[in-house]
Amino acid sequence: MTNLSKKTAIIGIGLIGASFARALREEGAASSIVGYDRSADVMARAVACGAVDSAAASLEAAIKGADLVVISTPVGAMAGVLAEIAEKGDDGALVIDVGSVKGAVVEAASKLNPRVHIVPCHPVAGTEQSGPEAGFAALFRHRWSILTPLARDDADYLAAVKRAADIWRAVGAEVEIMDHHHHDLALAITSHLPHLIAFTLVGAADDLESVAEAEIVKYSAGGFRDFTRIAASDPIMWRDVFLNNRQAMLEVLGRFTEELALLQRAIRWGDAETLERIFARGRTLRRAIVAAGQEKDVPNFGRDEKA
Amino acid sequence: MTNLSKKTAIIGIGLIGASFARALREEGAASSIVGYDRSADVMARAVACGAVDSAAASLEAAIKGADLVVISTPVGAMAGVLAEIAEKGDDGALVIDVGSVKGAVVEAASKLNPRVHIVPCHPVAGTEQSGPEAGFAALFRHRWSILTPLARDDADYLAAVKRAADIWRAVGAEVEIMDHHHHDLALAITSHLPHLIAFTLVGAADDLESVAEAEIVKYSAGGFRDFTRIAASDPIMWRDVFLNNRQAMLEVLGRFTEELALLQRAIRWGDAETLERIFARGRTLRRAIVAAGQEKDVPNFGRDEKA
Repeated sequence: MTNLSKKTAIIGIGLIGASFARALREEGAASSIVGYDRSADVMARAVACGAVDSAAASLEAAIKGADLVVISTPVGAMAGVLAEIAEKGDDGALVIDVGSVKGAVVEAASKLNPRVHIVPCHPVAGTEQSGPEAGFAALFRHRWSILTPLARDDADYLAAVKRAADIWRAVGAEVEIMDHHHHDLALAITSHLPHLIAFTLVGAADDLESVAEAEIVKYSAGGFRDFTRIAASDPIMWRDVFLNNRQAMLEVLGRFTEELALLQRAIRWGDAETLERIFARGRTLRRAIVAAGQEKDVPNFGRDEKA
Repeated sequence: MTNLSKKTAIIGIGLIGASFARALREEGAASSIVGYDRSADVMARAVACGAVDSAAASLEAAIKGADLVVISTPVGAMAGVLAEIAEKGDDGALVIDVGSVKGAVVEAASKLNPRVHIVPCHPVAGTEQSGPEAGFAALFRHRWSILTPLARDDADYLAAVKRAADIWRAVGAEVEIMDHHHHDLALAITSHLPHLIAFTLVGAADDLESVAEAEIVKYSAGGFRDFTRIAASDPIMWRDVFLNNRQAMLEVLGRFTEELALLQRAIRWGDAETLERIFARGRTLRRAIVAAGQEKDVPNFGRDEKA
C-alpha cells in the first residue's frame, strides 16, 4: 500500500480514532501517527496500548506539520476543533472527521478558511466498546464510509476528496459520496433511532419496580439482550449525535411513534389482522440484509451459548 | 438418561416442537415420538427431516396412548387443543405447552377435567427461524424454562409438575417455577416489548419513502441490523403472544412511550443532561447480562464481517 500521509494527527482517541490509527499503520499508509486528546489519561493510555506513536502536548502541536488530521471526538466538540485547525493547521492539509452526523459538521466547516481541506466523513462501523484500548485495525473492513463533501469545486478540494476516499479504501472501507441532508435522514433511521429506542427500552426496564434486574438478566435471551449491545454504547457520543441531528431524529421519531400507536391500538382492541400484516414485513428486510452479507443468517445457537 | 416417556405426542411441529423432539431423542428420554400438525405439509416435512418418528392422522390419534403431550402451536390455538386433550387424552397423561404467554393457558387449563395433568411451561429460547427444519436439539441448553403450575395441590398433580421439571432438565434447560401473572409481566418487558419495538422499527423504516430499502440494508451495521433478527420472527406466533398478553403489554408499552416522550422532548429542547443520564444506564445492564453468561462480550468484529 502506498504511503498516504507523512504525519497523521488523531484528535480524540477513542474506539474510532484508535482503530483508524491502527488500520493506517497496518496498511503502511502513514509514516508517523501522533495523538491528541483533551484527557491526559486517555492520551497516556493510547500511547501505552500502542494505538498511536506519540502524544502531543496540545492540539496545535499535534496538527503542526500534519498532512492528514482525523477528528474523532464526539460530534459536539467538532466545531471548536475544526475552527482551531482551520486557523493553525498546515496549508493544504486534509482534515477528515468520523462523526455520525454530517449536517452540523458541514455547516461548521463551510464557514472556515478554505486553506485546509475539510472532508466530512462517516464510517458506519463501531462496537459497544469505547476508549483507545477498544480499537482494532479491522473495524472499517467491508464497512461503508460515507463522504459528504463541502460545496467547493476548486481543483485542490476535489483532489482532497479523492485523497480522503483513497484513505478510507486503504483501511478497508467502501466509499459512498452523499448529500449531507440525505445522510442525516438515512442514518437517523438505520442507526440513530435504533440506538435511541434501545436506550429507551433499557430505561423502561430499569424503572419497572416489580421485575428485578436479576430477572431481566435471566430472561434476556427472549429478545431484550439484542438491544443491550447497542444500549451499552458511549453515552456522550450518542448524546451529541441526537442533539446535532435534531430535525431528522424528530422526523423518524414521529413516524416510529405513529406506527407504535397503531400497534398498541391493535393490541388493545384485539385486531389480529393489523398485527399480522405489520409483522410480516420484518422477514423481507432481514432476508435482504442477510443476502447483502451484512449479517450471517445463523440461528443464535452458538453465539448465544453460555461460555 | 432415564426414559421419561413411552410415547410422546408433539402437537404443532415448528421450531420449538421439532427442537423439543430432537432433544428428547438425543437424550434417549422418549421411546417413540409422534407428531401432529393441522398442516399436512408441515407434518410431512417434520417426518422427512427426521424431527419426529411418525405423523398422526388426527390430534386424537396422536395423543392416544401418549403419556407426554407437548403443545407447541401458536398461543391462540392452545385453548382448543387443551380442551380436546382433556377430553380424549389418556388418564394421567402429562400435558405441557411451550407458549410465551402463561395467563391465557392457565385460565383455559383451569376449567378442564383434571384427569390429565396440564403443566403450563415457557422455555425462554428461540431463533428467528421457523418450521420443523429449523429445529435443533441444543435449543434449550442453558436456557431457562419457566413453569407456572395450576392451582392444584393433589399428589398426582405435584408429581406431574416434578416430572415436567425433570423433562426440561433432560433437554438441557434450567427450571424456574413462577406465578403466571409475574411471568407475563417479566416476559412482557424482556421479550414481548423488544419484539414489538423491533417490528415497529422495521415498519417505520419501510414507510420512509425518501430512504430506499437498499440504503437501509447498506447502512444497517449502524444499529438497525440488531433489530432485524428478532423482527424476522414468526408473525403468527407473535400476533398471538400480543393478543394473549394484552394487559401486561399495555402496561410496559405505557412505560416505554413515557420514557420515549421524555427523550424526544430532550432532543427537541437540546437537554443534554437528561439524554446523558438516561443513556448511562445501558452499560450497567449490559455488563450484568455479559457477567451472567447470557452473551459473550465481544466486539461485533468477526460475527459482523462479510462472509
